[in-house]
Amino acid sequence: MMLELYHAGLTACSKKTRLCLREKGIPYVSHFVNLKKFEQHKPEYLKLNPNGLVPTLVHDGVAIIESTVINEYIDEVFPDVPLRPEDAAGRARMRVWGKLADEALGPNMMVTFSGAGGIGNAARDLDDAALDKILAGYPLRDRREVVRKVVRGGGFSEAEFAASKEKAGFILDRAEHCLGEAKYLAGDTFSLADINMLPFIDRYQERVVPELVSPDRLPKLCAWLEEMMARPKVIETYAPSEETRPKDGAA
Amino acid sequence: MMLELYHAGLTACSKKTRLCLREKGIPYVSHFVNLKKFEQHKPEYLKLNPNGLVPTLVHDGVAIIESTVINEYIDEVFPDVPLRPEDAAGRARMRVWGKLADEALGPNMMVTFSGAGGIGNAARDLDDAALDKILAGYPLRDRREVVRKVVRGGGFSEAEFAASKEKAGFILDRAEHCLGEAKYLAGDTFSLADINMLPFIDRYQERVVPELVSPDRLPKLCAWLEEMMARPKVIETYAPSEETRPKDGAA
Repeated sequence: MMLELYHAGLTACSKKTRLCLREKGIPYVSHFVNLKKFEQHKPEYLKLNPNGLVPTLVHDGVAIIESTVINEYIDEVFPDVPLRPEDAAGRARMRVWGKLADEALGPNMMVTFSGAGGIGNAARDLDDAALDKILAGYPLRDRREVVRKVVRGGGFSEAEFAASKEKAGFILDRAEHCLGEAKYLAGDTFSLADINMLPFIDRYQERVVPELVSPDRLPKLCAWLEEMMARPKVIETYAPSEETRPKDGAA
Repeated sequence: MMLELYHAGLTACSKKTRLCLREKGIPYVSHFVNLKKFEQHKPEYLKLNPNGLVPTLVHDGVAIIESTVINEYIDEVFPDVPLRPEDAAGRARMRVWGKLADEALGPNMMVTFSGAGGIGNAARDLDDAALDKILAGYPLRDRREVVRKVVRGGGFSEAEFAASKEKAGFILDRAEHCLGEAKYLAGDTFSLADINMLPFIDRYQERVVPELVSPDRLPKLCAWLEEMMARPKVIETYAPSEETRPKDGAA
């Protein structure tokens, strides 16, 4: 059995899958994809992942894409240390959280973060011709346009930040409500819902909308976040390590 | 066992779940939610579905939301006539199609369709005070802003239509590619991938971007669409019926 993970270390979606594998204790071969060098657009990588996104799991030669889908695949194929609720209603709740992470928090964070983060910084250093070439390499229009907007379009407006904050607030309040009904997001057991939401909530509290994720406003969510961040596998996954650095040692 | 479906008849996401139930031959109690009367924002409905969206499945009193999640729930709980691929890699492909339908084609169709369709028309008939009240009832900001834009903001621009068309083209081309590798979207068996993509592809060909979904450009996708639309359960689900009309007989 050969399991390979193409990932970008400490980016949100890469942390989702790296944490899932660690929680289950499944060894894998790690391939760091340097987003700042746009390695995710190389033809050999696009053969595995036509969206040009990380992570991608390759299991005995078969590529599985999309971190939320990858995590459910891993839990199906390797049933030890199950990370999905035992009941179908719990799995449905888990999948709704996966959708919220992917559809709302991910794109939303691109706005609240002023776009493309490290990628934006890498793109800003390019001259016009080089930037055009990079932009043309994006398979997904939405991703390309975020980078274009951040680098050339003056970034996001105050109105866009406000909209983004309202949307984040709706989901954070939902999480607070659910954590009043059960210990974890999808029910009384730790699950992929927690793993898939964690990198977003963590970053929201730390850097994006810290005023929304405060113990007086969202006490249950903050207690959940504290418990999550203290899990040994989370500490291991979220800390910089050999696995999260480019092979050539560049930043 | 009591299965109730709250749906809006011939809207895309309602068709997804109504078709899933019919293909599996599972009887259910139908509750038509009249979107033009904004019944999806009533407090008793929001208790079932805090997003204020249709459909919602209520199984022995437990509410399951989000059509893609509902369909997988149904297939897990009622294993006869399985609608998920037997292998985990096939299920992963199926789930990626579900994500494309929900994340890309659904929101994209709101733009290419000039927004809110029947809801937009209903909103246009309201005076300002009534419209403000309706808009305030939307739990999800993105949905609310589409209606506001269509009714008060002059609708979508040519640039937005062009962007939407580019995004649709990317996914349609992906479908064509996959149908060159297997008979159905997720592999060699009919699955929830086909059910979840069908209402979007059908409407794209019929009304949104017919020039993109043509047999000379996408022969395999058009052959798939023809086969899908000829399935007896699709004919039954996609045709107007008692189930797809408001109880009071209004349009």
